[in-house]
Amino acid sequence: MSKVMINENEVDIVIGALNPDLTYFMEEWRPVFSRFHLIIVKDPDLKEELKIPEGFNVHVYTKADIDKIAGSTSTSLLFSGYSCRYFGYLVSKRKFIVSIDDDCVPAKDDMGNLIDAVSQHVQNLETPATPFFFNTLYDPYRKGADFVRGYPFSLRSGVTCALSCGLWLNLADYDAPTQALKPTERNSRYVDAVLTVPVKAMMPVSGINIGFNRELVGPALLPALKLEQEGKVRWETVEDLWCGMCVKVVSDHMGIGVKTGLPYVWRNERGDAVASLKKEWEGVKLMEDIVPFFQSLRFSEAAVTAEECVIELAAAVKESLGPSNPVFERAAEAMVQWVKLWKVVKT
Amino acid sequence: MSKVMINENEVDIVIGALNPDLTYFMEEWRPVFSRFHLIIVKDPDLKEELKIPEGFNVHVYTKADIDKIAGSTSTSLLFSGYSCRYFGYLVSKRKFIVSIDDDCVPAKDDMGNLIDAVSQHVQNLETPATPFFFNTLYDPYRKGADFVRGYPFSLRSGVTCALSCGLWLNLADYDAPTQALKPTERNSRYVDAVLTVPVKAMMPVSGINIGFNRELVGPALLPALKLEQEGKVRWETVEDLWCGMCVKVVSDHMGIGVKTGLPYVWRNERGDAVASLKKEWEGVKLMEDIVPFFQSLRFSEAAVTAEECVIELAAAVKESLGPSNPVFERAAEAMVQWVKLWKVVKT
Repeated sequence: MSKVMINENEVDIVIGALNPDLTYFMEEWRPVFSRFHLIIVKDPDLKEELKIPEGFNVHVYTKADIDKIAGSTSTSLLFSGYSCRYFGYLVSKRKFIVSIDDDCVPAKDDMGNLIDAVSQHVQNLETPATPFFFNTLYDPYRKGADFVRGYPFSLRSGVTCALSCGLWLNLADYDAPTQALKPTERNSRYVDAVLTVPVKAMMPVSGINIGFNRELVGPALLPALKLEQEGKVRWETVEDLWCGMCVKVVSDHMGIGVKTGLPYVWRNERGDAVASLKKEWEGVKLMEDIVPFFQSLRFSEAAVTAEECVIELAAAVKESLGPSNPVFERAAEAMVQWVKLWKVVKT
Repeated sequence: MSKVMINENEVDIVIGALNPDLTYFMEEWRPVFSRFHLIIVKDPDLKEELKIPEGFNVHVYTKADIDKIAGSTSTSLLFSGYSCRYFGYLVSKRKFIVSIDDDCVPAKDDMGNLIDAVSQHVQNLETPATPFFFNTLYDPYRKGADFVRGYPFSLRSGVTCALSCGLWLNLADYDAPTQALKPTERNSRYVDAVLTVPVKAMMPVSGINIGFNRELVGPALLPALKLEQEGKVRWETVEDLWCGMCVKVVSDHMGIGVKTGLPYVWRNERGDAVASLKKEWEGVKLMEDIVPFFQSLRFSEAAVTAEECVIELAAAVKESLGPSNPVFERAAEAMVQWVKLWKVVKT
């Protein structure tokens, strides 16, 4: 494992614990995680005690903490299931957050070396992004790479990177229908690249393996869209997809960037795709309305910070999407609640 | 070398011969090229006889052919130097064209297998592109890949791919300043991916290693912008950058896609970057005006075909860029000339 020089004190690793026994997960990540401060948020629906091995610098938050800080029951509900991690985003005081699902372990690169996903995310966040012109040679700031001929020099300093979306080996992040159609398909292709997603290009951000600049866009990583029947497996969730669209439009408006590609994590099996099929279709249908909405969204010039953008966004959601489905109305309300909470916790 | 099932009769390989002795180039490519029909266009500035080894299905075009078809001296000038290949695009009658610089030889993949760049380009062109939403798992049509969770099903059929831009191992396509700053830097990273460049995202297309659908966008691959001092080395040229911006905006308007990534070719050294520095800066400066122009360009709804788009584009170039530099006025004129020529040859 090659060590990258980063400032560990600027990083919080946030883990949402959906399963009580974190022993295997933590032991696999020990070579990476032991350098960092960890925030573990226990899914408030989880009854059993958490099992966390010793030797980590870790702060655990449970339902009691959530209820205390969130205040009301309706607000506490924001943080159930996969969304418990957002509580970690809320209480973190550090510049960067890296968050990885608890069914993922470190992947290995082409040479068989353990991948330090945390350092790679921080590196993605600390080097500029280039959303305003596409570089065919991928990340121009990487060692051995540069800008291709024809890339305007005025754009070569790039802009700040807000979000780093990592990928997955073994079990790829498919929706339930695709997973059910291809039950044996596994992702074994290691694509050795990081790239900036161009401005105005929308993408489905998966929450499985991400890093972000909390100081810049923290308020835009929010729990908002949740399906009634949303369960405890990834392919049923839409919360991270919604959150990803929010961060992307906010970043575009703020003139900062979003990257995708490295680092990979190794994703283990969990859940029964066929059983999930029935629930997932609701999320699949929602995306048909969600994508055009975000693609055509424009913020006012008055919206400068991520908080201000989220408030404008919530109003637009309520107005444009709300009438078609109550799930969007609830999402808009959740976004307003979230920004209020963010302001309270931060002041 | 793994064989891909494609229809060889639909493909023309177009080579611009800037050097008389093509023996090494052709022998290296023999395992790939021998299946296909080749169009070799001799740079009209080249005095020596071409040396082409036997055993290929090849049609050679020289200055005499160019003068005959282009008609006038000013039109013939369009096809000098690196731009001679455009004459091959003009006379081809096939659906797909693949064009590779004559200082490139086949690359090898991670496993040491020879890469059939021609078949890979055709495969890129025959499978759909996805410019309207970004797939974090790269090319969703590739074996073992699919659309990531959250990708709208209504967009999963994709659109026709117009252009496939390949990459280079060994000597990357840097401009002269970068090449002069990093004389020993070589590209050894094989990124095993193809991706669609999102709609409205502009990119610097390098003409070194490309494939395109001639029937759809042929008229938009044109020789237009040429520097006074443009020489015989790639890092001095801007013709392919201009042409790439044209194809991208035309493809965006037509609702078709552009891909980048695989296939790689192996690029050998040629030229003296330091000596090129003086000339290149003109091209570098021009890009600062060219990029915003193309980024803000909008076609009328009346422009439906690539020809019609190019005519509108030429008028916009003349109006917006022409006053700032005569090189743009000449480019606009060349674009009109080219479309006329295209119509004559095709009817």
